[in-house]
Amino acid sequence: MSLLITTIKKLITISADEEAILTNLFKPLNLKAGEYFLEEGQLCRYVGFIEEGLVRYYMNDDGNQKTLYFNKEGEFVSNYQSFLPRVPSNTSIQAIEDTVLQVINYADMQRMYSDVKEGERLGRLGIEHVFLNSIQQLKSFYKDSPADRYQEFLRCYPDLAQRIPQYYIASYVGIKPQSLSRIRKRLVEPK
Amino acid sequence: MSLLITTIKKLITISADEEAILTNLFKPLNLKAGEYFLEEGQLCRYVGFIEEGLVRYYMNDDGNQKTLYFNKEGEFVSNYQSFLPRVPSNTSIQAIEDTVLQVINYADMQRMYSDVKEGERLGRLGIEHVFLNSIQQLKSFYKDSPADRYQEFLRCYPDLAQRIPQYYIASYVGIKPQSLSRIRKRLVEPK
Repeated sequence: MSLLITTIKKLITISADEEAILTNLFKPLNLKAGEYFLEEGQLCRYVGFIEEGLVRYYMNDDGNQKTLYFNKEGEFVSNYQSFLPRVPSNTSIQAIEDTVLQVINYADMQRMYSDVKEGERLGRLGIEHVFLNSIQQLKSFYKDSPADRYQEFLRCYPDLAQRIPQYYIASYVGIKPQSLSRIRKRLVEPK
Repeated sequence: MSLLITTIKKLITISADEEAILTNLFKPLNLKAGEYFLEEGQLCRYVGFIEEGLVRYYMNDDGNQKTLYFNKEGEFVSNYQSFLPRVPSNTSIQAIEDTVLQVINYADMQRMYSDVKEGERLGRLGIEHVFLNSIQQLKSFYKDSPADRYQEFLRCYPDLAQRIPQYYIASYVGIKPQSLSRIRKRLVEPK
């Protein structure tokens, strides 16, 4: 059974027929490291589920890339602010490892809502999760100091610190890579 | 028929039995102008629907009240970041007119999901709407200039400019009331 189906079964109850419907509605998409799930200015056409790999979300801010967020295997990936109202995205989503996804488009998502008994429940629980996560990430992005951002990074992504290049971590924290080294040094030194 | 039921019927199809269930799950709550739907530090226990009246959302920032948002008759009101994960709210919601609400608590919301056939769909559509709105409001709160905030206020709340006291509009825009007068003057003067 795919990680996608295992994950869905943790959220809702599905019959064997519905498992087949879901397996059919999601399509495979493979990205090499560096390739894009979504580029700024495009419509976000899919909600994806990461079977293997890692992506980062970033925005351009006066020519600087600011990293907002990461998603890894076992997680859903999308820019709902583009996907739901069908408007161009102001955010890019890029694979930073070779990444294997299952993706569903907008029309097939509506099909899921009508053809899977608890499909609406899956959608409701999914968007509740994304909502809480997005608000917290966005508040932190605008409000928190780099030192707080780094500690938050370690708390949210404890297993990713070794997989993400330092310059992307620095871009998430909102500082230059050399400043990140200083913060890391201060955190390990006794006070 | 209440405005609540009319609004729900625009989103989902309900039977007469389900209309009775919904009418029973929502309870009346009346607030005088100045009273609170939710105070900072409390758990947000309800999702409310405003039959009549007007509320504002605000946060305390170093002793200053910063107004984030307004809701009026025909709209749902809640702090989902407190209501969904059952944690204390960092936002207050205050009636700024005498306000008549219908409110539903967390347990009754779960009952709605199980007892109303399209209840999950209502929940999914509701949270999608709140999600898009909240992200846009939060980005604007942190990023936009006072002049942009004021124009956004007029765009989002064209009918409310006369009902909301100037000092709350100034607090939403993020400036002192006298600065708001200057912005308003500049907007009406020919360039």
